[in-house]
Order: sequence, then C-alpha cells, then structure tokens
Amino acid sequence: MTTVPPGGTIGILGGGQLGRMLALAAARLGLKCHIYSEEPGPALDVAAAHTIASYDDEAALAAFAAAVSAVTLEFENIPVASLAFLAGRVPVRPGARALAVTQDRLAEKRLARSLGAMTAEFAEIDRLADFGPRLSTVGLPAVLKTRRFGYDGKGQAKIKSAVEVDAAWRTIGEQPAILERFVPFDFEASVVAVRGIDGAFAAYDMVRNVHRDHILATSTVPARLSKVVEDEAIRTTSALAEALDYTGVLAVEFFVVETTHRPILYVNEIAPRVHNSGHWTIDACPVSQFENHMRAVAGWPLGSTARHSDAVMTNLIGRDAGAWSKLAAEPGACVHIYGKGAARPGRKMGHVTRLSPRSP
Amino acid sequence: MTTVPPGGTIGILGGGQLGRMLALAAARLGLKCHIYSEEPGPALDVAAAHTIASYDDEAALAAFAAAVSAVTLEFENIPVASLAFLAGRVPVRPGARALAVTQDRLAEKRLARSLGAMTAEFAEIDRLADFGPRLSTVGLPAVLKTRRFGYDGKGQAKIKSAVEVDAAWRTIGEQPAILERFVPFDFEASVVAVRGIDGAFAAYDMVRNVHRDHILATSTVPARLSKVVEDEAIRTTSALAEALDYTGVLAVEFFVVETTHRPILYVNEIAPRVHNSGHWTIDACPVSQFENHMRAVAGWPLGSTARHSDAVMTNLIGRDAGAWSKLAAEPGACVHIYGKGAARPGRKMGHVTRLSPRSP
Repeated sequence: MTTVPPGGTIGILGGGQLGRMLALAAARLGLKCHIYSEEPGPALDVAAAHTIASYDDEAALAAFAAAVSAVTLEFENIPVASLAFLAGRVPVRPGARALAVTQDRLAEKRLARSLGAMTAEFAEIDRLADFGPRLSTVGLPAVLKTRRFGYDGKGQAKIKSAVEVDAAWRTIGEQPAILERFVPFDFEASVVAVRGIDGAFAAYDMVRNVHRDHILATSTVPARLSKVVEDEAIRTTSALAEALDYTGVLAVEFFVVETTHRPILYVNEIAPRVHNSGHWTIDACPVSQFENHMRAVAGWPLGSTARHSDAVMTNLIGRDAGAWSKLAAEPGACVHIYGKGAARPGRKMGHVTRLSPRSP
Repeated sequence: MTTVPPGGTIGILGGGQLGRMLALAAARLGLKCHIYSEEPGPALDVAAAHTIASYDDEAALAAFAAAVSAVTLEFENIPVASLAFLAGRVPVRPGARALAVTQDRLAEKRLARSLGAMTAEFAEIDRLADFGPRLSTVGLPAVLKTRRFGYDGKGQAKIKSAVEVDAAWRTIGEQPAILERFVPFDFEASVVAVRGIDGAFAAYDMVRNVHRDHILATSTVPARLSKVVEDEAIRTTSALAEALDYTGVLAVEFFVVETTHRPILYVNEIAPRVHNSGHWTIDACPVSQFENHMRAVAGWPLGSTARHSDAVMTNLIGRDAGAWSKLAAEPGACVHIYGKGAARPGRKMGHVTRLSPRSP
C-alpha cells in the first residue's frame, strides 16, 4: 500500500477551511498539498499547488491524479463517480465505498443498525405515497431529511402532525429522503477517530456539542459522560470504520438521551472527514485530527489521540470573527481565523479554543 | 501604527524553515504571507505568494513592499540598506536599527554591557596588530569571531595561546572581529520573548540547550534554574528588547556558569528573530513563538507565553530525519519535517518535540 514520504504531495478535494487546516497539518510533516476545488477558497493560500475545475472534469482530474501520490477530501459531497475515476489512477482515502455509504443518510443508518447501534426509528421515503404506510411506523414528531447533500440543517423539515407531510415534502424539494422519528435528546456528543491503512484505530476523547440554528456553536471536552457510555460510543465508531474499510479521520455524531439508568446513545450522522467538533484537537492534543488524517492518508503510523488539556471550542460564525482583536488578547485563547472573504450570516469564519489544565 | 487585520498580507524576508513556520502560524490568524527570498526554499510551499530576487534588487523590493502591509524576516543577515529601503515604504518589524545592532557581535555585546548584563571579556579586532595590546586584556583561552554573518559556529576560531593568533585571524578570513574570553560554562540557556508594537513584553519559560558540533541539538523546558536566575535572564532580555525598540520575537542565549553561590549568566548572543530554541512552543504552548512573532508584526495583542506541558525539542540534522516513520510512531512525539531537499550533513531537516505533563 502506498506510503507518501516527506516531500511527497497529497491531493485534497475541496478548498475550504477544512482543506486549509489539513494543508497546515500536512506541512508539519513535510508533505506538500495540491488543492482541487470548484472555486477559490482559503486552502489555496497555504498549499503548494491548486487546480480550479469542476469535480466532473475528467481531464482536470486526470492531471490532478498524475500530480499527487494520494487523494483525500475535505467534504463528503464529491460525486462518487469522480472518486472512482481518481481511484483508478491513485489511492483515494477514504475510499469510494465509504463515501457512497456516508453520502446517503439511509445507507448510513442501515449500516449503524446492522452493527447493533441504536438509531432513531427511520423509513425510506421515495415519493409522497410512501408517507401513508410509513408515518405510523416511524411515529411523530419526525424529521424528513434528504438522503443526500444535507449539512448544517439544510434539506430538513420537521413533521409534527400528518397534515404537515405535504409541506415538508415540498420543503426538501421532493427528492429521495429518510423519515426519522424525532429523538428527544438531552444533548449531542461526537467521537472523532482515525483509522490507518493497516486497520489501526484510535479515538479522541468524546466531545459534547451545542448547536445554534442547526450550526455547531461549541464543542467541550471532556464531555462528562461515564466511561462505560464513552467506551460504547468509541466501540460503535470503531465498528463503523471497520465496516467501511475506512482510512482517515471520521466523526460520528450521537444524540444522548439521559435516563434514570444510564444515557442512551443514538447514532445521528457519520462524517467521512475531519470534523468541526474535532477542531479543539489542534490546541489540546500533541497530534490534531488534521495531522492524524494526513498521516492515515499518507500511510504513516497514526499519532497519539491523547490530550494534554481540557478545551472548549467556539465557532466564530458570520460577524463573530470581527472580535478577533479582543479574542487575541484573551489569555489561553487559541484564535483561528480562516481567511475567508465576506462574513456572511451563518458562514464559519473561524473558531477559538479555550484551554484549561486537564481535569482529573 | 499599522495593524494588519485578518485577510491582510505580511511579507517575510527569507524562505527557510523559520519562514515556513512563521507562515504556518500566520495562517492560523487568517493572515497571508508573501515570501521574499534569494532562492526557493520550504516556506514557499505554504505561502500565498513569493518573490525570488536578490536582497539588493530595489525594483523587486519595491514591488514586494507594495504587495504587503508589513515586513518581517526569518534571518538576521539581510543587508541593513535593504531593510532601510523597505522601511521607507512599509513598516519593517523588527526595525533596521535593531537589526544593525544584532548583526554585529561587537555592538551587541556593548549594548548588553551598557545595560548592566554580564558578558565574556571582549575586545574589538580590526587588524592583526590589534591582538598585541588586546590579547592580554581579554585573556586566554579566547574565541575570535567575525563581527558579522556568523551562525552555527561558522566564522569562529579558538585561540589557546598567543602562537595561534595568526592562524585564527586567517581562519575567520581576516575581517572585522571580536575577541572573546572563553567562558567555562556549565551549560547554555536561552530566553525566547516577544515585544509588541505598544511595548508590551512577554517571555516564554527559559530553555536549557545542548549543542553538538556547534549546532543546537536539544532544548529542554523547564530549564531547572532557580526562579531568581530565570527572572534575571528575563529582565535582561526585556531591557535589550526595550533598548532596541524591538518588535517581534527575539532570543537571548546565555552561558550559565555554576558557582557555589548561584549561577552566573553571561549574555552570549541576541537573535533578532524566532529561534530554534523556541520551536518547542509550537506544541507546548497555546500560542507559539511563531504566532506571537506574527501577532507583534501585525500589531495584534500578544498571546500568552504560558505553557501547558514540559517539553524536550530535538533537532533532526542531516540524515536524522530519515527516521520520520519511527518518530511518527512514538506516542507523545510531535514530528516536524521542513520539506527541504537533500539531507546534507549539518542541515536542519526537522525537529521532534516530546511532551510530558507539566511538572509542578
């Protein structure tokens, strides 16, 4: 299996902030990056080379494949056909199959169930007529989600009663969907983990997440879950990674429902990439999620996922990043600004990680 | 005074590993970098723009100045005339005066003495005839060093007895020099500190350094010096920075001589830049020396110089970096490879920082 030594070049599909932080991590290891993106983005400023072309431009993809020793991606919505095209020329990590499953909320949930993990009740919805038999099986309230291309709450509609079905179907654009029973969760938590080309697996400590307007607002570690619950989440993540024959960093988001006994974990989503809820690892761990992803993609040994500090990561959304000077003056705050252009509402412009000594 | 906000561009003179790590740190803050270098180097791979031209090419310097909001440097041997030329167009930090002093071992030592710091006995040597009266004042054994352009032990010759004077003078190329009494030091230690454009000052914890073949081999923090000694070193560093009206990171190397009372510190050298003995700050501090330098150059508030971990930094010289795979597999080791070409003997190819929990 291909190993990319220092001096070699890794191709990254996507030029946003995740690509940027991947390129910065690769640079620590002496690896060059070549960004392939449909439009200019902040990753270009820190990469040795870039290609601006459509993800289905086969001539551009072939030239890109010829210029790099391995390919990875910073976001999951790359056409699977493009990944397959690249995979015929150069190692693509994670692989096309892992992407095909995780691009599809239905396939993802079915996989989780097949491995014995809990998920919300769900059913496949391909046409309006499917609601009839399936609404009662799933139960209400429910959430209708497009099977593909959803992120940050986009492509979703709540259904509180049967009369809302028509409107929800129109809201998501009348496309193949999954209907999920709403889980009355107490909070969300995630596991960010990495799997090497040799099957080695390592997970960072679990993270407690708070969303605002469907966008991640803060991630806190430690998550203050019992060890038995955290171990279960990490086992589920490991089983998913194994089943997908996964290479690189992946994140699994869980809904956590408190009970009088112990919390119940529901698999909500699998992200086949570095994840916003793992940004704290840059500052609180010897080896960040970004570096561990690039190590896996390059076929290097995985790095430690231990952490030396407690951390609270806060996203800087839209105009939040305007406070950069005040944030920079705050002791112990690690400020990250992504170098994007306009601070549009809802746009992730940066993040700040506040460290504190590791709690016992 | 100019502040460079996120999205702005900082120019860096020099394209080696220090420029590379400066550019990586700038990227965290959303700052772009433009590298100006006489030859291609590893910094180019992580910078948004670069110029390859001679340091005295005024047309290239003028275009560079027009493309950036502030200029800094990764090594001190930039012609002062070039810095002055740039300073007429754009803020240069640190400034030409600070560079003029620190490029000259004699001026540097005189400044240290004028501030009440200890140095080895020294004398100015401009011609062979100067040895006559000055050799006995300085005393033997002594070290003859060129006033300018020395680094990693280059441009130096030991003099153990008067008969060696002629040979030493020829060894250093018969150029303006400083003769220094050899200090029988027990070890070397350094202070890496930063001064903001507003005069704010902050120092990292002192570092204990081990050299091999005149090249830094390891830096260890904590340095295990008493607080009173460390405070004295930091006061000296602060006074030097103040006297130079310095902006950015500087490092002061001290010889430490143990006595039955308390260690004596001799100022050995001032480096007007980020320093190899501060590389550990990337992994053991929330804000590294590289980020603090870019903050100062950009006119931002300084970041904390606190550290969360103990650290031992080991340089990877020449073929040492060939062990990257083994190093990468070591838990708690933070591996940094600079992405240089040939691993020539004596060439700094990377470093590894080994972290451990902060000792009380």
